[in-house]
Amino acid sequence: MTTDDALFLRAARGEDTPRAPVWIMRQAGRYLPEYRALKERYSFWEMVRTPDLAVEVTLQPVTRFGMDAAILFSDIMTPLPPMGVDIAFRPGPVFSDPVRSRAAVDALRVPDQDELAPFVAEALRELRRASPVPVIGFGGAPLTLATYCVQGGGSKDFAEFRGFLRAEPEAAHALLDKLTDVTVRYLRLQVEAGAQALQLFDSWAGLLDERSYREFGLPSAQRVMRELGDSGVARIYLAVDAGHLYPAIAELDTDAVSVDWRRPLSRLRDDLPGKTLQGNLDPAALLAPADALVAEAQRVLYEGLGGPHVFNLGHGVFPQTDPDNVARLVDSVHAFDRRTARHDTVPLGTAR
Amino acid sequence: MTTDDALFLRAARGEDTPRAPVWIMRQAGRYLPEYRALKERYSFWEMVRTPDLAVEVTLQPVTRFGMDAAILFSDIMTPLPPMGVDIAFRPGPVFSDPVRSRAAVDALRVPDQDELAPFVAEALRELRRASPVPVIGFGGAPLTLATYCVQGGGSKDFAEFRGFLRAEPEAAHALLDKLTDVTVRYLRLQVEAGAQALQLFDSWAGLLDERSYREFGLPSAQRVMRELGDSGVARIYLAVDAGHLYPAIAELDTDAVSVDWRRPLSRLRDDLPGKTLQGNLDPAALLAPADALVAEAQRVLYEGLGGPHVFNLGHGVFPQTDPDNVARLVDSVHAFDRRTARHDTVPLGTAR
Repeated sequence: MTTDDALFLRAARGEDTPRAPVWIMRQAGRYLPEYRALKERYSFWEMVRTPDLAVEVTLQPVTRFGMDAAILFSDIMTPLPPMGVDIAFRPGPVFSDPVRSRAAVDALRVPDQDELAPFVAEALRELRRASPVPVIGFGGAPLTLATYCVQGGGSKDFAEFRGFLRAEPEAAHALLDKLTDVTVRYLRLQVEAGAQALQLFDSWAGLLDERSYREFGLPSAQRVMRELGDSGVARIYLAVDAGHLYPAIAELDTDAVSVDWRRPLSRLRDDLPGKTLQGNLDPAALLAPADALVAEAQRVLYEGLGGPHVFNLGHGVFPQTDPDNVARLVDSVHAFDRRTARHDTVPLGTAR
Repeated sequence: MTTDDALFLRAARGEDTPRAPVWIMRQAGRYLPEYRALKERYSFWEMVRTPDLAVEVTLQPVTRFGMDAAILFSDIMTPLPPMGVDIAFRPGPVFSDPVRSRAAVDALRVPDQDELAPFVAEALRELRRASPVPVIGFGGAPLTLATYCVQGGGSKDFAEFRGFLRAEPEAAHALLDKLTDVTVRYLRLQVEAGAQALQLFDSWAGLLDERSYREFGLPSAQRVMRELGDSGVARIYLAVDAGHLYPAIAELDTDAVSVDWRRPLSRLRDDLPGKTLQGNLDPAALLAPADALVAEAQRVLYEGLGGPHVFNLGHGVFPQTDPDNVARLVDSVHAFDRRTARHDTVPLGTAR
């Protein structure tokens, strides 16, 4: 069992640590042969819902690579079925009845915390015992959960959802309120079961302009963050492709913001003052030859100097990634001493 | 036949016109019943490749709504098959042999201008005669065409392409060079046939960070723009979701930049100095009730004051859009007098 002074937790909570802790999004998943071996025997959802399997999968990348944090193997859709939302996976989520009216919103349940996902609580308790590194729980942000509920599945542009916000703003707010209540309960459940950090995935927030985000996205994410504020866990907010929202995200009561690869970290310090930055290697760098990968990782490490930094990818690892490249990446982050490195002295060979 | 002083051309070339000209991306397409009626008899590609049909479809929204410009009904993939790239449409493009090696790049042909797309030249000549408003030609930017060639079709993340840029940078540059040569010829063909403006669609540029865009995207787009610079046509560059690239895009030798809905136009004037701004209503606003649509359009019109503005959507119109809402939108843009409107006096009722 890890303690509160683990490197990842210190950095996530705002400490400018001597080296950057590292984990990568979707680190437990299809690019790992040991995951694919289990996947031949169990479906994704069996693994999510069976605590022993979820724990095993969660720890695979920690064991193999020495990641500095373990993120629970699960899915942001987990709390929706107990609300009465019927979802099939083929393999992307398909909702049998998209939520597109006030009546449909009113019909949604807000289950008690204990009903929500007992298998998640059990997996986290076991993980907390078995993991050599801090355990991260997570959930979808209310806006992003609403995006799926209204759209009825994944989409390139989420047109139905974006139209719904305009045609039915009151129903949209009612939906967001319910999803916020459920998300708070779902994350409290995770904290009580042992999660030491929480990441809130607002994967689709970047589709909105700042005005719409301030009306529909920020208030619900803020309520989640504040209600978890006294839990003592490190809180991380993720929005992809959301540089235009940073003025609003800067107001979020979160310890860290996970950012994509589009902007160098050094340029984001002023936009997100007082937050730990998590990121932001382009996951495509892991498809490159080893020397190009290491050079690109070094650039991210140098860009991350001058404030607290948790090294991560800017988005989930691609399934076709060679695990040996992930090992190289983790080793190269671990070897980087932030105390002796200077931001203005990028060594020869790291620039292309 | 229109002359060079048509409102759209004046605004696109940098004049702060008394009212904003308006057209919308994908204005000829599935949301129009008269388009769907033709589509029952002809495939998309039959319409693109048959000049009479392409002209008819191009003019449908001009006739119905009084748009201020007519954009040729075509597809950015048009110049690829003559290069020897085999593409099937089901309905999205599927490339039988993705271009993923130097040898595959070397095998691509660079056809003469006359071979490239005679049906496009014929359609433009007829359009120039028949259209009451200026005629816009277009092509895909070399980077975006390369994205499809390498990936082999559409994708959520274009991982193969992003990996290819890192694993095979020389082959990537060779591919971009050939695509630039072809794009210049393809656009020259359109200018010689009568196109009065050209829009270069760099739909996927926003996936790259600024450093990668400056290496792989900007130089090829710049060469296209410069080679068309002496043609006298108005040049428009479109990149979606590319706010992080504006420092680079500002260097492009283009008359106008088409921007998405994520940032208000007033905030982009400083980022893109000296360029006409084209945009940027969220296409989802057209799925809203009429009063909400008009209020949102008014906001865009006010935000567009203080510099040359071509009113457009921030992305293509959604197929489920009600044409009556498009009519309302066009009427409301036409009724907006930019000389008497003031940026600091948004009337009551336009703010939500």
